[in-house]
Amino acid sequence: MCTSDDDMVTVVFEPDGNKIRTQPGTSLLDAAVKAGNMIRSECGWNGKCGKCRVVVKDQSHLTGLTVHERRLLSSPEVERGVRLACQAKVKGSVVVFVPPESRVEQRKMQVTGHERPSDLDPAVRKLHVVLPRPTLSDARPDLERLTDALDEYGLDELEIDYDLLRGLPRTLREAEWDVTATVWDDSRIIAVEPGDTSTNIFGAAIDVGTSKIVVYLVDLLTGETRGVGSVENPQIMYGEDILTRVSYTVAEEDGLDVMQRQAVNGVNEALRIACGEADVDPAHVYEAMVVGNTVMHHFLFAVEPRHLSVSPFTPAVKRMLNVGAGKLGIKMNAGGVVSALPIVAGFIGADAVADVLSSGVHESSWTSLLLDIGTNTEIFLGDKDGLTSCSCASGPAFEGGHIRHGMKAVTGAIERIALDPTSYRARYETIGDVQPRGLCGSAMIDVVAELWRHDIIDGTGMFNQGLDTQMLKEANGKAEFVLVPEDESATGHEIVVTQRDVNEVQRAKAAIYSGCSLLLKREKLVGEDIEQILVAGAFGRSLNPENAKTIGLVPDVTADRVRFLGNTAITGSKMALTSRKARMEAVELSKRIGYLELSDDPLFGSEFASALFIPHRDPARFPTVKPG
Amino acid sequence: MCTSDDDMVTVVFEPDGNKIRTQPGTSLLDAAVKAGNMIRSECGWNGKCGKCRVVVKDQSHLTGLTVHERRLLSSPEVERGVRLACQAKVKGSVVVFVPPESRVEQRKMQVTGHERPSDLDPAVRKLHVVLPRPTLSDARPDLERLTDALDEYGLDELEIDYDLLRGLPRTLREAEWDVTATVWDDSRIIAVEPGDTSTNIFGAAIDVGTSKIVVYLVDLLTGETRGVGSVENPQIMYGEDILTRVSYTVAEEDGLDVMQRQAVNGVNEALRIACGEADVDPAHVYEAMVVGNTVMHHFLFAVEPRHLSVSPFTPAVKRMLNVGAGKLGIKMNAGGVVSALPIVAGFIGADAVADVLSSGVHESSWTSLLLDIGTNTEIFLGDKDGLTSCSCASGPAFEGGHIRHGMKAVTGAIERIALDPTSYRARYETIGDVQPRGLCGSAMIDVVAELWRHDIIDGTGMFNQGLDTQMLKEANGKAEFVLVPEDESATGHEIVVTQRDVNEVQRAKAAIYSGCSLLLKREKLVGEDIEQILVAGAFGRSLNPENAKTIGLVPDVTADRVRFLGNTAITGSKMALTSRKARMEAVELSKRIGYLELSDDPLFGSEFASALFIPHRDPARFPTVKPG
Repeated sequence: MCTSDDDMVTVVFEPDGNKIRTQPGTSLLDAAVKAGNMIRSECGWNGKCGKCRVVVKDQSHLTGLTVHERRLLSSPEVERGVRLACQAKVKGSVVVFVPPESRVEQRKMQVTGHERPSDLDPAVRKLHVVLPRPTLSDARPDLERLTDALDEYGLDELEIDYDLLRGLPRTLREAEWDVTATVWDDSRIIAVEPGDTSTNIFGAAIDVGTSKIVVYLVDLLTGETRGVGSVENPQIMYGEDILTRVSYTVAEEDGLDVMQRQAVNGVNEALRIACGEADVDPAHVYEAMVVGNTVMHHFLFAVEPRHLSVSPFTPAVKRMLNVGAGKLGIKMNAGGVVSALPIVAGFIGADAVADVLSSGVHESSWTSLLLDIGTNTEIFLGDKDGLTSCSCASGPAFEGGHIRHGMKAVTGAIERIALDPTSYRARYETIGDVQPRGLCGSAMIDVVAELWRHDIIDGTGMFNQGLDTQMLKEANGKAEFVLVPEDESATGHEIVVTQRDVNEVQRAKAAIYSGCSLLLKREKLVGEDIEQILVAGAFGRSLNPENAKTIGLVPDVTADRVRFLGNTAITGSKMALTSRKARMEAVELSKRIGYLELSDDPLFGSEFASALFIPHRDPARFPTVKPG
Repeated sequence: MCTSDDDMVTVVFEPDGNKIRTQPGTSLLDAAVKAGNMIRSECGWNGKCGKCRVVVKDQSHLTGLTVHERRLLSSPEVERGVRLACQAKVKGSVVVFVPPESRVEQRKMQVTGHERPSDLDPAVRKLHVVLPRPTLSDARPDLERLTDALDEYGLDELEIDYDLLRGLPRTLREAEWDVTATVWDDSRIIAVEPGDTSTNIFGAAIDVGTSKIVVYLVDLLTGETRGVGSVENPQIMYGEDILTRVSYTVAEEDGLDVMQRQAVNGVNEALRIACGEADVDPAHVYEAMVVGNTVMHHFLFAVEPRHLSVSPFTPAVKRMLNVGAGKLGIKMNAGGVVSALPIVAGFIGADAVADVLSSGVHESSWTSLLLDIGTNTEIFLGDKDGLTSCSCASGPAFEGGHIRHGMKAVTGAIERIALDPTSYRARYETIGDVQPRGLCGSAMIDVVAELWRHDIIDGTGMFNQGLDTQMLKEANGKAEFVLVPEDESATGHEIVVTQRDVNEVQRAKAAIYSGCSLLLKREKLVGEDIEQILVAGAFGRSLNPENAKTIGLVPDVTADRVRFLGNTAITGSKMALTSRKARMEAVELSKRIGYLELSDDPLFGSEFASALFIPHRDPARFPTVKPG
């Protein structure tokens, strides 16, 4: 539905300032989910639990109190503007205050990228000191003169980078003993600059993805993201997929050096863009926190990656890394530290640890299923008492790969789509509200769900050739379904979904569902035990939970328990950058999270075969899913 | 006295195995001092305290029991062969066992370079492990697989060198999971080698002197010195003295790099020689412990040294350094660690800390004066409850510099010399028992003492021109005294001591005595409070304590309380290399030792002027010193 902007209203959620454009009639709780705000609800949005209390001062743009609200809210509450988010619907633009008791977890507020870390405590800090000049009666060595001064900040036993020490006598004297020291992790001096530069202290959250490298430039005094840089991973010229790139490092003697240089070049370029946006000198970036899958992680640090590509897929290292920026060639402060979040296993990388960190499932008392959907899909199951993970080869279908008109979640991609029950014509929304060029992952889920719902395909995914509609055509003897006629598309060609596309989505969703199912089995849980399903990944802004369930991508839980989190890798990275507590949590997570190797599981084959059906060969697994 | 070898007897001190050649009639205690063995004595070697008990099984080569021994030794003791070392004199070669209760301190046994460290506990250790191969059900990352195995040796939370990590996957697989890990300080893996190499583990004790670089190759399994390498410091081509070299680093842009490269080249060459001697691959040297004065220390580590050459002579760093061998270019194991002992002040370097460590004065209850005599002389005063230090510019006279026929303590140097009271003809001993080429520092002390004792010079150092002897001549209007006639010398020329030489020695000894005197003043002590004077430095094998006192070089204490220690810098370095306890002591010492800046002391000028006299302008300071 190409909704014109005039029909939409704006809902702002405070105190985070998250803003969303939505249609009139949307409940505040629906709007909150859309905005990535997590509001408590224990009754399935039925107005019965009263947990979703929010405050709206000016209620003129809200629908009136429902019977549920009249029952659950006290008079003073009503006077203060308290409403139940699941009951109140917007008529116009409103500002909604979410009180702390209604938030699911503080942590989760960051998932949308709205940055206000709750515990700003980065590993690097800057301290301005003016040192007494040496005299014959006080000829303390330069380093000890400096550390004695820093001792007054409660930092004793400080170490110093050897390369920094070498030039320290000159630095101190040129600065006339008035310097700012940058200290990493309260243990090591990594930079000494003339004068007071203590307000210039930045960090970089870096997501090295297989296809994209994203850098957030973060002001470490405020926690604010000041610039964002994003580039295509330059390694792509050596192969689109990970395995080709690993093969290159095996085949070519300097292959690993080449891969590292490319990754470093990409990071440097993205960092340059982010710094340029904020007019910040990269020399004032003192720490970088890197996330990425295990292969990207090994590439960036030039750690031998070849054993990641063959069974049993063993990484070189699991723990957190901290390496000098100069050593890696990252163009930030020469003494800066480049850290990487730890990993769990060969297919559960630092990016997946960031997902968990950002989602907060490790702190939640709810039994959660967390999925980061991509070519490999990482799945986590558990709660604050423990998490188990697995990874499944879901293929590139949800990132637009191997799909006739598939594309990534960028401008021009259809991200939501529905079929008219009678005309079968598609209504859709595109990213950027422009003419459509193709379908991104969330749209593919919508398409397959709608095709099945309207009996255009059957449970095996086969098109119903007997259907009487012009939308269903045949090309080269294969069925395909027209979603966008040529005169509506940006390319001038029809946008279709083919039989092959549908099968591709089936294989992808079957792989993911099998992972979920085997994880549940291992933990002796069933679908009904899952209290929330959180989905991360490159789906653009949205994923239709009902449709995800309909095609059998995720276990059958009520749709309100399925939430889309967006890019949690970069937000998790930023959390670890700005909070040492979060960093320690990541370290703990990498040790604690269990790992189930699916290729080692004898049940995988039959699980996968059954999961190829829509929603599943065993309908009992999806009791709430019915054909339309 | 050119004693022929046939007159000499051999005395071996067990359990250390120190061996010394000496003349018949020497007391065991004298022989012990000569051998560097420290035997207790509280009565001034008078046979009264009974502390110097030693055991000699075969007494046929000893003089008989004295009255003192009959009084102090019990019959069972006499039966066991117990003797008082100050009483028993050698008639022939003997083996002497020094029981623990008679040793001054275990520590001091190392000062002669006879290596049997009492607490062998080096910072590097090797551990052989066979790792289980990765499987799908045990796909632990390589590093964690290794650290889990090392955990069984009680080493947890091990870190690893980043450069080592990069190649770890290949190393482990090429070794088929059977490897030996080298761990530094129980905290960091610095090397991983295929197979079991645990018996191949060496360290290097390195003394970077202004003129000479000495390396001891030490087997870290036994503590044994397996090879010694010694080269001239190649920096000499940029200047004989330290200040010229520092000036070079100021004048030339790459001057410091040049100086470092030269120092590293010298160390590499000396290490190569030491390894060659023992047929050890330098790649099996995992740790080096460097000592040297502060400038040499800064040069080797390429730390800006220029401020050491101008008041207030501030070093860049005081603490112990630990730097990767690869980073410095030292040709040992690439992951090896090059450490440097800490320093006290600009003129009290890592070599002086090694002196203290080796001498044991910091553990002694005796009030000790420790001197390391060289171009700069470092002096320490105190006991186990505290030490204060100073440094004085004594000049090169005691190293043969600025002396007509002066030379270093190498083969051909006269090291002991005495004048016949009537003929004034010199009797002397040369290093290597060859014809004399010149005079080393200990001989210069002897010469000046003997000249004064026999009234050939007066208290101001002026030759007595009225003396009727052919030995005293005049050349170019200046007096000079013949020590060796031309037909006796190796050069075919006379060896003489000039008026200028005598004055040079006076200036040197005045500087040193002034340092001692001001240190005593600061500590509110007088000469009589000193219970031992320990002298280190490049004096060859010997220094005549009586003569040192006679010229007023050291305060007037009974000669038996003055001991010569030899090269304590290298033995102190070896102690720190082989014992982490000794290393910690060095760190504590560098923090605890006080420093008196003489150039800041208003009394220095008048002290120095008075000390130019022989023995001193104030004879009361040297009550036991009388002209002959």
